[in-house]
Amino acid sequence: MKSKASRKAVVLLSGGLDSATVLYIARARGYLCSCLIFDYGQSHRKEIIQAARIARSAGCPSRVVKIAFPWKGSALLDRKIKIPEKPAAGIPSTYVPSRNIIFLSYASSFAEATGARTVFIGAHDQDYSGYPDCRPEFLEAFGKALRAGTRAKIGIAAPLIGMNKSRIILEGAKLGVPFGLTWSCYRGGKVPCLRCDSCHYRARGFKEAGIQDPLVKS
Amino acid sequence: MKSKASRKAVVLLSGGLDSATVLYIARARGYLCSCLIFDYGQSHRKEIIQAARIARSAGCPSRVVKIAFPWKGSALLDRKIKIPEKPAAGIPSTYVPSRNIIFLSYASSFAEATGARTVFIGAHDQDYSGYPDCRPEFLEAFGKALRAGTRAKIGIAAPLIGMNKSRIILEGAKLGVPFGLTWSCYRGGKVPCLRCDSCHYRARGFKEAGIQDPLVKS
Repeated sequence: MKSKASRKAVVLLSGGLDSATVLYIARARGYLCSCLIFDYGQSHRKEIIQAARIARSAGCPSRVVKIAFPWKGSALLDRKIKIPEKPAAGIPSTYVPSRNIIFLSYASSFAEATGARTVFIGAHDQDYSGYPDCRPEFLEAFGKALRAGTRAKIGIAAPLIGMNKSRIILEGAKLGVPFGLTWSCYRGGKVPCLRCDSCHYRARGFKEAGIQDPLVKS
Repeated sequence: MKSKASRKAVVLLSGGLDSATVLYIARARGYLCSCLIFDYGQSHRKEIIQAARIARSAGCPSRVVKIAFPWKGSALLDRKIKIPEKPAAGIPSTYVPSRNIIFLSYASSFAEATGARTVFIGAHDQDYSGYPDCRPEFLEAFGKALRAGTRAKIGIAAPLIGMNKSRIILEGAKLGVPFGLTWSCYRGGKVPCLRCDSCHYRARGFKEAGIQDPLVKS
């Protein structure tokens, strides 16, 4: 049986379906989860609001942390850069330099301060292989660095690594993830734009999983 | 000859003499340095002001980034925790969970956004072996993670690793580091308290180096 301390986990929650599924996976594995949500100047606040709702739906406390990205360089932070409408080769313009690196660093600090030993992240490499800080080799190396650089030898859990979107959706459906609360669209409208690459991957995932996306009218 | 991009570096500057020496080392190695200074809620602002002065003295641009540590747990962030007056065994109460991890993460983002390839940090393991995120094994692991997780394969340079305080002071003196601008004391008074462990290590370093600390009356 795990000790109480080792059962505590920090879950990075973005408002999307990947991290929501990770929260439900961590909960199913018996972790006491605290959710960390970042307000990092993303172009819309909808994902922050939805992330807090997802935490509530799972019965877990959540905390919004405001962090500055005082330098631009990403379509998600800079309105002058266009959000791509279809998947491109290489690293997409929506890449925010070191975003996951900063998120994981904060999560490790929060974990150290609250007695948690594990940080859960929804990174996966199937759809977004263009983001260097989503790759398994990065997560493995970062996990080693955290173990060496924290008092509690914090570990990283990335249970979606190796899964594609449809597999994640099937996994989430099994665990009762409230997909209707999850928001994937890079734009913050009332309904998903269905044109940005995040909408594209979500739609393909639901289609391949044979499940109806509750956000999209059938 | 290095290309222009590979000659750009980000230097983490704290206002102390270690990072000031690192800035002068990086400059001497031919790097075009941009300094990153963190306003992270430390108990006094003196080190931020001094850090900006040190950057100016080296002729390098600097940028202050405000970051939140919304959780406490360190004597440097929480006035209810006492600053230790002598070196203690184990991890001291001045340890800020994941501080260097977060600083390095931000620096990697800044480097990615500005075309720099190297992040310089003044960490060393001789005096502060109690901070887990100053240890060489952490820095090495983190460097590997950054190379894997950034577009530009950002590297970490920690030229003080393996040096003790007196060696750093001798190195700095050789390069003309303005020690009178550096601030090491955990308290933010007009003159160093000479009682906190940071003052203790500084005093011992100057004594062993046979150099007079310009901040202390002889």
